[in-house]
Amino acid sequence: MPSKPKLRIGLIGSGFMGKAHVFGFASAPKVFDLPYDIELHTLADITMEAATAAANAFGFHSATDNWRALVDNPEIDVIDITAPNALHKEMALAAIAAGKHVYCEKPLAPLASDAIEMADAAEKAGVKTQVGFNYLCNPMLAFAREMIASGELGEIRGYRGIHCEDYMADATSPYTFRHDPAGGGALADIGSHALATAEHLLGPIAEVMGDCVTSIHERPDGKGGTRKIEVDDIGRAFVRFENGASGSIEGNWIATGRKMQHDFEVFGSKGALAFSQEHFNVLHFYSTADAKGLQGFRRIEAGPDHTPYGRFCVAPGHQLGFNDLKAIEVAGYVSALAGQGDEPFNFRKGAHIQGLVETIQASSSERSWRKV
Amino acid sequence: MPSKPKLRIGLIGSGFMGKAHVFGFASAPKVFDLPYDIELHTLADITMEAATAAANAFGFHSATDNWRALVDNPEIDVIDITAPNALHKEMALAAIAAGKHVYCEKPLAPLASDAIEMADAAEKAGVKTQVGFNYLCNPMLAFAREMIASGELGEIRGYRGIHCEDYMADATSPYTFRHDPAGGGALADIGSHALATAEHLLGPIAEVMGDCVTSIHERPDGKGGTRKIEVDDIGRAFVRFENGASGSIEGNWIATGRKMQHDFEVFGSKGALAFSQEHFNVLHFYSTADAKGLQGFRRIEAGPDHTPYGRFCVAPGHQLGFNDLKAIEVAGYVSALAGQGDEPFNFRKGAHIQGLVETIQASSSERSWRKV
Amino acid sequence: MPSKPKLRIGLIGSGFMGKAHVFGFASAPKVFDLPYDIELHTLADITMEAATAAANAFGFHSATDNWRALVDNPEIDVIDITAPNALHKEMALAAIAAGKHVYCEKPLAPLASDAIEMADAAEKAGVKTQVGFNYLCNPMLAFAREMIASGELGEIRGYRGIHCEDYMADATSPYTFRHDPAGGGALADIGSHALATAEHLLGPIAEVMGDCVTSIHERPDGKGGTRKIEVDDIGRAFVRFENGASGSIEGNWIATGRKMQHDFEVFGSKGALAFSQEHFNVLHFYSTADAKGLQGFRRIEAGPDHTPYGRFCVAPGHQLGFNDLKAIEVAGYVSALAGQGDEPFNFRKGAHIQGLVETIQASSSERSWRKV
Amino acid sequence: MPSKPKLRIGLIGSGFMGKAHVFGFASAPKVFDLPYDIELHTLADITMEAATAAANAFGFHSATDNWRALVDNPEIDVIDITAPNALHKEMALAAIAAGKHVYCEKPLAPLASDAIEMADAAEKAGVKTQVGFNYLCNPMLAFAREMIASGELGEIRGYRGIHCEDYMADATSPYTFRHDPAGGGALADIGSHALATAEHLLGPIAEVMGDCVTSIHERPDGKGGTRKIEVDDIGRAFVRFENGASGSIEGNWIATGRKMQHDFEVFGSKGALAFSQEHFNVLHFYSTADAKGLQGFRRIEAGPDHTPYGRFCVAPGHQLGFNDLKAIEVAGYVSALAGQGDEPFNFRKGAHIQGLVETIQASSSERSWRKV
Repeated sequence: MPSKPKLRIGLIGSGFMGKAHVFGFASAPKVFDLPYDIELHTLADITMEAATAAANAFGFHSATDNWRALVDNPEIDVIDITAPNALHKEMALAAIAAGKHVYCEKPLAPLASDAIEMADAAEKAGVKTQVGFNYLCNPMLAFAREMIASGELGEIRGYRGIHCEDYMADATSPYTFRHDPAGGGALADIGSHALATAEHLLGPIAEVMGDCVTSIHERPDGKGGTRKIEVDDIGRAFVRFENGASGSIEGNWIATGRKMQHDFEVFGSKGALAFSQEHFNVLHFYSTADAKGLQGFRRIEAGPDHTPYGRFCVAPGHQLGFNDLKAIEVAGYVSALAGQGDEPFNFRKGAHIQGLVETIQASSSERSWRKV
Repeated sequence: MPSKPKLRIGLIGSGFMGKAHVFGFASAPKVFDLPYDIELHTLADITMEAATAAANAFGFHSATDNWRALVDNPEIDVIDITAPNALHKEMALAAIAAGKHVYCEKPLAPLASDAIEMADAAEKAGVKTQVGFNYLCNPMLAFAREMIASGELGEIRGYRGIHCEDYMADATSPYTFRHDPAGGGALADIGSHALATAEHLLGPIAEVMGDCVTSIHERPDGKGGTRKIEVDDIGRAFVRFENGASGSIEGNWIATGRKMQHDFEVFGSKGALAFSQEHFNVLHFYSTADAKGLQGFRRIEAGPDHTPYGRFCVAPGHQLGFNDLKAIEVAGYVSALAGQGDEPFNFRKGAHIQGLVETIQASSSERSWRKV
Repeated sequence: MPSKPKLRIGLIGSGFMGKAHVFGFASAPKVFDLPYDIELHTLADITMEAATAAANAFGFHSATDNWRALVDNPEIDVIDITAPNALHKEMALAAIAAGKHVYCEKPLAPLASDAIEMADAAEKAGVKTQVGFNYLCNPMLAFAREMIASGELGEIRGYRGIHCEDYMADATSPYTFRHDPAGGGALADIGSHALATAEHLLGPIAEVMGDCVTSIHERPDGKGGTRKIEVDDIGRAFVRFENGASGSIEGNWIATGRKMQHDFEVFGSKGALAFSQEHFNVLHFYSTADAKGLQGFRRIEAGPDHTPYGRFCVAPGHQLGFNDLKAIEVAGYVSALAGQGDEPFNFRKGAHIQGLVETIQASSSERSWRKV
Repeated sequence: MPSKPKLRIGLIGSGFMGKAHVFGFASAPKVFDLPYDIELHTLADITMEAATAAANAFGFHSATDNWRALVDNPEIDVIDITAPNALHKEMALAAIAAGKHVYCEKPLAPLASDAIEMADAAEKAGVKTQVGFNYLCNPMLAFAREMIASGELGEIRGYRGIHCEDYMADATSPYTFRHDPAGGGALADIGSHALATAEHLLGPIAEVMGDCVTSIHERPDGKGGTRKIEVDDIGRAFVRFENGASGSIEGNWIATGRKMQHDFEVFGSKGALAFSQEHFNVLHFYSTADAKGLQGFRRIEAGPDHTPYGRFCVAPGHQLGFNDLKAIEVAGYVSALAGQGDEPFNFRKGAHIQGLVETIQASSSERSWRKV
């Protein structure tokens, strides 16, 4: 049979996000008509044993414990980085230097300045990049964005966006790299998703006032002692959008009971939207154009009218899952590699979100508003 | 038949809130075993015609167009003020001077300084006062407060409280007294409810950072022209509670589609609560003490276990209405007048909430944090 | 002041429903502009002591332990019966014989034949009657009924109606009059509400197939022994409406966890409605006329557009309570007494619902369909 | 690298369900540690052109327009049938005769007698079979089943199960094979899912009373005329389970507005469960063991505690999608092929559900109860 050109993937890391990327690579070609045949080429991990086990489990041809060899391998087209955050920059710069396209989990690096350096390098080298902001790949978010852009809600006035989970709510859970002063904290870890969604829907944020709070002041260090925590458990911000709307953002990883509260409400002069990631196949829409007495938030269920839902299922209401969002993310990137559209979320955008996070953190420290 | 001492009410004003007070006076004695027989004595309104019509409709014995006569009438025990806000102070001070107990709708006066003067006068005169913060009378809020106080949620860490409606979302709706620079705006009008609920549950707020935004910059003046709007359509605040918790507040009267979004979430180390006034007979409770795999927010429906619900209905789930909250408010006040407990929400507390509103407004103007 | 003619009420019984009626009598005149002044005249209960205590608590002028005296008292216009079901018939017939209007809690009598006798007597005597089907007084149900009648949903095809609670789910709760073979069981007690709502919305039921099931076969008799239970804990029915639609009904008093699941869904060719009494101020409406991609159930919150909500509150979303429905019920009846419209739900209708219940029970026993 | 034995798949059909199967084959090996390497060997469709296009899109090695050749190909281990229902039997029997394992979409055949013949043949030949009842693969359903089996809900008393969609609600949508008197109708098409879920949770149904209703009596025949419809648009049943519980079932494909209302409630003596496929990552649980005043339905979100959710995602609340259920279905079958456990849902079970459907239909026609 005739076949498409190959797109050979080299994956670094095989944890939670590594696995999610592999799910995306596996299902994207079945769901979408991609311009390339994706080949899972080589998987790199910290030991040969771990790499081999993961390569077998995930269906890669070969394994390595030397990520530099993987990066330099001329048979590989795309370097996919899901290693710990602290290593992202070194790996990505090496891959860019080797002329590879780079797909990297968020955050690109602990500091925004590093992320900017990465974006600069990629642009200079002319390679295409992608950061894993998967929530943005939800068909209902794309639909919400179009509704806002088309004026369906009228003039946008107010916004509330949050991303709250409880994975750090237990004060006896130990210190991890997510608590590192450089790049750590709830705002950076998940508040960044709330910021990305806000800008995805309403456009650029122009000014912020931050309120980053540490609630749990020390955690076990894993060696029998404790370690002081300096990063925020709750990161809040007032925001002003360039379009004139005002809003608020909250990232919170000690929100007891909340598992996936990535929610927003947008209020316009002619309508409103409400969304919760807890039921991410649903978008609630209120229109002032509805007849008097019959107005109310409509519970719109995702279906083939909401691209690209129909690729996954011809019937509405069946629901996409978290990993399906990853497939959409992969498909967008692979298409961009073939020149079909922009990357869904490239290093420049990733660096921008990290800059926003740092601006909010600085605003919080200085207790004053800051321009972005 | 033997009978209780009478409590004779003089009501000033017969609009929305006047009617709600009358509902409360009518049903409270049937629901509760009050220490007094409530007598609807005299109703004052701006013309004799309006006063007479309302007195007939509401069941008052007599009517007057002279509120001063009503205040001075020795046959009246309680002066209930539901006249326009700008008149509250003059009326309340006159009533206090006449030795009457005073029940007054919120806000007590346009400015907090006036409200403090009113509270001072009442305390000096030894009369008992009440401000109409009816949301606080909800049995589920009392229950939430007890849960928090008893430690059921552990250490309280985070709070999110909002009161959003859309009654000012239409930019063509005209300028009203609610838009007056003195005492007007969404934060004062409904954000004050969010603040009252927050302090009711978690105790005093110690510090605030405000963000008060005007979205609709002019409105019809009702005379064919337009009038500039200076008050906030959305009033936000970061808050610090004295107990160490941090949180956020939003009052918003241009929240298209929202009719009664007086909602909160409280996150503690051992549990969480979530509440929406849209279904105010329900409280959602998450406990980390529940078994693994079986944890989740519980939808607790109001019932006889939640005092004083059982006074209204012996069966759970039947639901109280808005006017029932007013009956609870009235019952609390009438009991306090007989020396049974404190007033549910007296002038001192009302003045305090107005002070909080002004502190947030000032913080917003200065763009800096403020101690309360 | 000028005053309306008096409507003097004599109440028999002072339990849960007696209290609810008094709430209705107290608030209806404040909420509505009734044609009469309601006077709570005399309250009858089984002992003078109980009657006097209740009369004082509820605000009746006098008390009696002789209901026959109350029925014969020429000063009384309406006899309101909230005594145990088994006594309804005797009391109502006596009141009718005395030329009184009669307001009676449901069920009118244990057997439909008795209820028909009561309806016949009332019609013959020309007195006006009312049965307390308060759920039907919900503004959102009136609104739903109008929508259906106006063709907003197109041709009606399918219906699902339930009334499930859990007050009999505990097998150790003792035998009560509700378990009496004559007139007892879940279908009669609460399934009757589901039937009344179904016919209120869609019109007469023409044919039924019943399935009445006893799940708890014996209960404590309150004397240390047990007593066999013969009535249904769950009563189901398939139904055919005269308009051609088909549907199902369930009454269930052992529905663990459910407090007020009086719910329905109506499916038409052009739209659908979904409702739950758990949030009875909300009606969900789906319209196939909405734009493609934007279709979904709308959550319509009760407001002034939904008569008579505006009588209680000028702002939408504030919510009526269970006792407010009783006020609407009272207002409808009092208006009917003055010749303004029909009684909301008279003895004839009450007898009809009891007939439906018995037809379903008979169908279940015979295991075959039955015409109504 | 070492590798697992291959499992070579031959797929017949490439429509909605064919694609869903391919999604399952693609992701199952990434998510689970399967005993085989799955190889997408050959795809058969009605023309060589269609087969080739689908084979390319889905990643099969080869294509054919001759399903018999595919069935007889000794290189193929499993025949996966997603062709039109009317062809299932012939294809499956041929595959079984060729000694192949057979995976077949539901329904196995238009008539239960055919399905039984297929199950008999498979058992006689010793091949392993699977029918695609994917809703049963939901981790929350497995969890619900365990809760019921472990006695967490006490004695099970009542059940309500429905599967309602609206894909046939438009009377102008044309006649299709789903309207064929043999095997057609809403009860067979989707009510069968409600029946499968009911038995999955509570065990065998012993007796039924059916109510199958045709609401739309004719549809366009696609040739400019109309065709009479004889199958049910709504199929209801009362059911008795062998465990003594009673319940009801509804399958409805004209339920305007409903896209995926595969819902159930189970009521036991000690607790209850409520579930909606509209949010299939959530299970609601009520326990009478919760403290007084704190009882309520808990909203349990799917997470790693609910096997095999953790295979897809290490964090709770992220949500599986419809196609993930297919991956679980595939994994169960592939494991069974290696002797690890039973098939999730084999031909015998599939034939049993079809028998239930036919019993209900017969009961409806005869208007009388029927033993299963």
